[in-house]
Amino acid sequence: MTDIESTDVHRAWLPPEVWRAIGSRHTLVSGTGLLVDTVAAEVQRAAARHGGTLRRTTETPDQAPADLVLALTATLPGRRPPAAGPGVDLAALGALGPEGYVVARHGAATVLLADAPAGLLYGLFHLVRLGETAFSGAAAFSGAAAPDSAAAFGPPRVFRPAMARRMLDHWDNVDVHPVMGQVERGYSGGSIFWRDGAPAAGRSRITAYARLLAACGINAVSVNNVNVHATEARLLTDRLDDVADLADLLRPYGIRVHLAVTFAAPVVLGGLPTADPHDPAVRHWWAQTTRRVYARLPDFGGYLVKADSEGQPGPFSYGRDHADGANLLADALAPEGGVVHWRAFVYNHRQDWRDRRTDRARAAYDHFAPLDGRFRDNVIVQVKHGPVDFQTREPVSPVVAAMPGTRLAVELQVTQEYTGQQKHVCHLAPWWSEILRFAPWGADGRTVADVAADGGGLVAVSNVGDDPFWTGHPLAQANLYAFGRLAWDPRLDPSALLDEWIDLTFDPARSADPQLLRRTLHEIMDDSWRTYERYTAPLGVGFMVRPGHHYGPDVDGYEYTAWGTYHFADRDGVGVDRTRATGTGFTGQYPSPWSEVYESLDRCPDELLLFFHHVPYHHVLHSGRTVAQHIYDTHFDGVAEVAAMCRRWERLAGLVDPALHARVTERLAEQLRCAREWCDQVNAYFHRKSGVPDAQGRPLH
Amino acid sequence: MTDIESTDVHRAWLPPEVWRAIGSRHTLVSGTGLLVDTVAAEVQRAAARHGGTLRRTTETPDQAPADLVLALTATLPGRRPPAAGPGVDLAALGALGPEGYVVARHGAATVLLADAPAGLLYGLFHLVRLGETAFSGAAAFSGAAAPDSAAAFGPPRVFRPAMARRMLDHWDNVDVHPVMGQVERGYSGGSIFWRDGAPAAGRSRITAYARLLAACGINAVSVNNVNVHATEARLLTDRLDDVADLADLLRPYGIRVHLAVTFAAPVVLGGLPTADPHDPAVRHWWAQTTRRVYARLPDFGGYLVKADSEGQPGPFSYGRDHADGANLLADALAPEGGVVHWRAFVYNHRQDWRDRRTDRARAAYDHFAPLDGRFRDNVIVQVKHGPVDFQTREPVSPVVAAMPGTRLAVELQVTQEYTGQQKHVCHLAPWWSEILRFAPWGADGRTVADVAADGGGLVAVSNVGDDPFWTGHPLAQANLYAFGRLAWDPRLDPSALLDEWIDLTFDPARSADPQLLRRTLHEIMDDSWRTYERYTAPLGVGFMVRPGHHYGPDVDGYEYTAWGTYHFADRDGVGVDRTRATGTGFTGQYPSPWSEVYESLDRCPDELLLFFHHVPYHHVLHSGRTVAQHIYDTHFDGVAEVAAMCRRWERLAGLVDPALHARVTERLAEQLRCAREWCDQVNAYFHRKSGVPDAQGRPLH
Repeated sequence: MTDIESTDVHRAWLPPEVWRAIGSRHTLVSGTGLLVDTVAAEVQRAAARHGGTLRRTTETPDQAPADLVLALTATLPGRRPPAAGPGVDLAALGALGPEGYVVARHGAATVLLADAPAGLLYGLFHLVRLGETAFSGAAAFSGAAAPDSAAAFGPPRVFRPAMARRMLDHWDNVDVHPVMGQVERGYSGGSIFWRDGAPAAGRSRITAYARLLAACGINAVSVNNVNVHATEARLLTDRLDDVADLADLLRPYGIRVHLAVTFAAPVVLGGLPTADPHDPAVRHWWAQTTRRVYARLPDFGGYLVKADSEGQPGPFSYGRDHADGANLLADALAPEGGVVHWRAFVYNHRQDWRDRRTDRARAAYDHFAPLDGRFRDNVIVQVKHGPVDFQTREPVSPVVAAMPGTRLAVELQVTQEYTGQQKHVCHLAPWWSEILRFAPWGADGRTVADVAADGGGLVAVSNVGDDPFWTGHPLAQANLYAFGRLAWDPRLDPSALLDEWIDLTFDPARSADPQLLRRTLHEIMDDSWRTYERYTAPLGVGFMVRPGHHYGPDVDGYEYTAWGTYHFADRDGVGVDRTRATGTGFTGQYPSPWSEVYESLDRCPDELLLFFHHVPYHHVLHSGRTVAQHIYDTHFDGVAEVAAMCRRWERLAGLVDPALHARVTERLAEQLRCAREWCDQVNAYFHRKSGVPDAQGRPLH
Repeated sequence: MTDIESTDVHRAWLPPEVWRAIGSRHTLVSGTGLLVDTVAAEVQRAAARHGGTLRRTTETPDQAPADLVLALTATLPGRRPPAAGPGVDLAALGALGPEGYVVARHGAATVLLADAPAGLLYGLFHLVRLGETAFSGAAAFSGAAAPDSAAAFGPPRVFRPAMARRMLDHWDNVDVHPVMGQVERGYSGGSIFWRDGAPAAGRSRITAYARLLAACGINAVSVNNVNVHATEARLLTDRLDDVADLADLLRPYGIRVHLAVTFAAPVVLGGLPTADPHDPAVRHWWAQTTRRVYARLPDFGGYLVKADSEGQPGPFSYGRDHADGANLLADALAPEGGVVHWRAFVYNHRQDWRDRRTDRARAAYDHFAPLDGRFRDNVIVQVKHGPVDFQTREPVSPVVAAMPGTRLAVELQVTQEYTGQQKHVCHLAPWWSEILRFAPWGADGRTVADVAADGGGLVAVSNVGDDPFWTGHPLAQANLYAFGRLAWDPRLDPSALLDEWIDLTFDPARSADPQLLRRTLHEIMDDSWRTYERYTAPLGVGFMVRPGHHYGPDVDGYEYTAWGTYHFADRDGVGVDRTRATGTGFTGQYPSPWSEVYESLDRCPDELLLFFHHVPYHHVLHSGRTVAQHIYDTHFDGVAEVAAMCRRWERLAGLVDPALHARVTERLAEQLRCAREWCDQVNAYFHRKSGVPDAQGRPLH
């Protein structure tokens, strides 16, 4: 194995110190398999550094004393650990599954058992998170914020992921795209996978990446952009070896590789005259091609497809629908055990801004809901969390509640395309937590997380690049971490998760002022998404960003374009009427109670008001403020909060790595500049349009 | 000489047919020199095609009969042509100068005499324009629209250019710039000079280009972008051979090469620690470097510099002013007889949009007027015609009237950066004619053309690329042609000039319907600049284009940027207050009477109202309409006029080359689409903001 600790990039949430508790113990690892080898190598490396020992057996563990036992249950007679006592009755716990594990204190030892090697790997990282607590009889073996984390030394506890697939989509191009660059919507330098048309150098970096992903629970990666250009299309065929090489690097950490493919592949790669899903030659081509993929790469995950969307080819070209399209690929993948992730992000991107009846928010539902029940079992319809496009605030997509007969995956965006592009601190876990906990059928019903867990899992667009801090903004690492952890367990409390990330990454306990470091980082990050929301587009109206790059304010930037993202501000009011009564009828795509809540001007939550309603500037919100005054107040507040972030960060000089401190300082200065720009432009825009003065008399320009 | 008629590009205003009158005659060419050779070769080529003959002598012409005599006066004893009669008394006409010529009918012959070879070349193209008329006793030997064109067969007439230097600046990059491409603000494909970092192939194309330029009177070309990037900087030193190669191709048509250089050259090329104009080592470097340039290229024209502008380096970095900077280069050029064109386009491009006191329009005057009298004689301060940046409508720059002790060149923009990017028909000659005839000191005073003629001449940014029609839009050729002709004689009537171009380019006389062809082309083009003005930014307010590429509408596109180009529209009114009374004081930069005219809300011309004043939407224009209604009306009118253009063009199918017809048809469709977009967006913007309904009830969105 590559020595992944020798890379010169930031260690993120796996600095060597986090291994101290395990590395200073006598550990026994029992079992065989690639991932058991990974576990043993990790323990060995930690022991070498911190003075512990590792013993390995591939059969029944001996009874020699150990502080820590990591064992596959298959190595245990009767599934009972060495010197088993009443504390660990595996039989009572049932099957742990392919990734589950059980942890217990057993005599003087901590015991981690799993049915499969992946469980041992995830369990190991669980113990890393616990640190010394893992060896203290007084501690509970729970996640940072599992519901019963208050339990003291209790019975053995079982951990299984909520989602079977916890996936990152890399929008990395193989060639440098003339407009989008090496990584589309990437804000962290180049790609760690590709460079200038070839595989990127730095294989140890990819291994280090896989290790970080495993440590937060991610188990699948799609390695190329969903907008599949000419070179990237060939990863499926004559450049498959490049994909296999990546898979070799990711596999030791339990990560399967998926590939974004173009629906036009039979034409552009196969030389066929059509890509029509009903054409037998097309079906044959996909079957043959897929067979070759699996022959080279038996644990290949499957395909990811963006079809009939923003210029990508798709089944509409042949008069077919998206069930026809997705099933074509699913049928090719089924014999090999693969899945196709088929994105529901389909809309008309050549809309006429003059036409107020067409509503982009309706598009995914209108295209996909009627197809419910027609998709194969190995089709996963991948739905963006909101109906538009990863805005700072959107309602949950009604598609989530509309396809009970279809496996759905929910797609989040870790890369901060619309949330500050890793120049702004914008900690997204609270937003994702809101989304995952949202109950489309009302408070007592299933949640978004339940739908994803029962379906295709959770997917996110990656924010990682070849930047020394991985994510451009060092604090943006927390978004990647939180995504993995929430995909494993959506019930985790985002605030506790933030502390978990801080403790791993910054090791406050060993700093000169643990309290200050931990509290300050928490204060800067915890509410930063809402801060971002305050100084950008107000009340759920969305966009107002510069076209093309999507950074910085441009209130009318998309107002007269073909992209379907409008705010309709005039001298009297602002917002999009999406009601059934007088608007586009989008509210009717929701089940009760949201269908009625969103329809109602009185009941609609303030933060989504302008997403659903066009209201006059003097409309009074639930908060008691008018819309105009709300805009002014939140924008000034948002800037003040960023200024406070900057002051707080200054206090951390000397408490964190100087290079990291300097990087964040530089980004915060840009965030403050940009937040002021947002504030002043949005306020000036609405002041010039509405004529409403600020109640506090602040300058509106 | 390359056979320039074998190129596969469009012949523009020199199709073979225009040579018929000359080519069918017996011609005598007398004199020596490179340009006399060019003249002889042109006549020879024409004669070979049309059945005439050429005789050449290098000494006194013999008395053998000829229909046409082209002779240098030096070859004539007593400066009298062969068989001289009373009609040609050269002594009485005085010196013709380096480019002047005299034409006369003399017995049965047409006689063209010049003191220098260049005069013979320009005279030859004069005869080309005249065609058969040149050989008819009844015709006047005048330009298309010289004031006394009504004169019949009169005395010999002398033609001399109004401007000594008639120059095109190519904004061509040697390397493909990642944002700006091969040609900055180029809308005609790649560069004819450069391609992907190297000289472009296709030398015959460059010769053909030189010939077209000579035929419209241009005599100088700057061969690279004023934004001088790394590779382009080296044209001055180790890539000088590339420049010399271009000069070899342009020289036979009387065109001198100039080079855009970076002020930082002593640092980036010379390895000096500074480019400070007062530093002796810097002065020495420029002197040495310039000496080497002239050693390689003795007829090199000089340097062109964009300094301290939009990120380019300049004297400000060293605490020096622009006289210091320009004189530095002038001193290096003076011993070699070269000039430096020093652009006055200096302004703060990092302005705060909140600050209404800073006014970009003031910048050139504020920077340069105080320096008047301090520039060397071989410095030409190159002033954009308007105070901002080549907008569709601007007042004339007050700098033109502010520097009596400085040689000024006036810069126009032939490339249609802000006027439709050669997708729109926008014939600019009427606009340029207005500018050149403008009298900054009042109706009885000198004109802009006079200032340029007495100073550094007329310069324009080229619109040519490697497109088969030269200019993307075939009808945009007329802009290039008109620029050259107006630089030669600014008094030419733009409407007559348009007909001159139509007659040369389309040869209506030989078409199936001469009347229809000529009239229709004239109708489409003559008022097209005003049509463009009608459907774009209203009343001189400028911009409202998409940031970056500057094509298509974006009313607020620059409103909250650092570029200093604002319209300040709010719910009550629109426009920039540049008065002395209440605004930025820009009106005070003009001499009387314009200082008072522009200051006065009552006297300010409608078409510049919003450039000088912020007015309420209900303000009544001289036209009797309110500002709001004017906006609506002109925008609807502009679209209707483009629709009419399209219909007119359809009628020409079969009367013009099918490929050209198809190209224009395609462009007109885009123009109509874009004009509608401008109309609807501008109208919607002002309707939403003002609430004023259209008096005619048309849809405003």
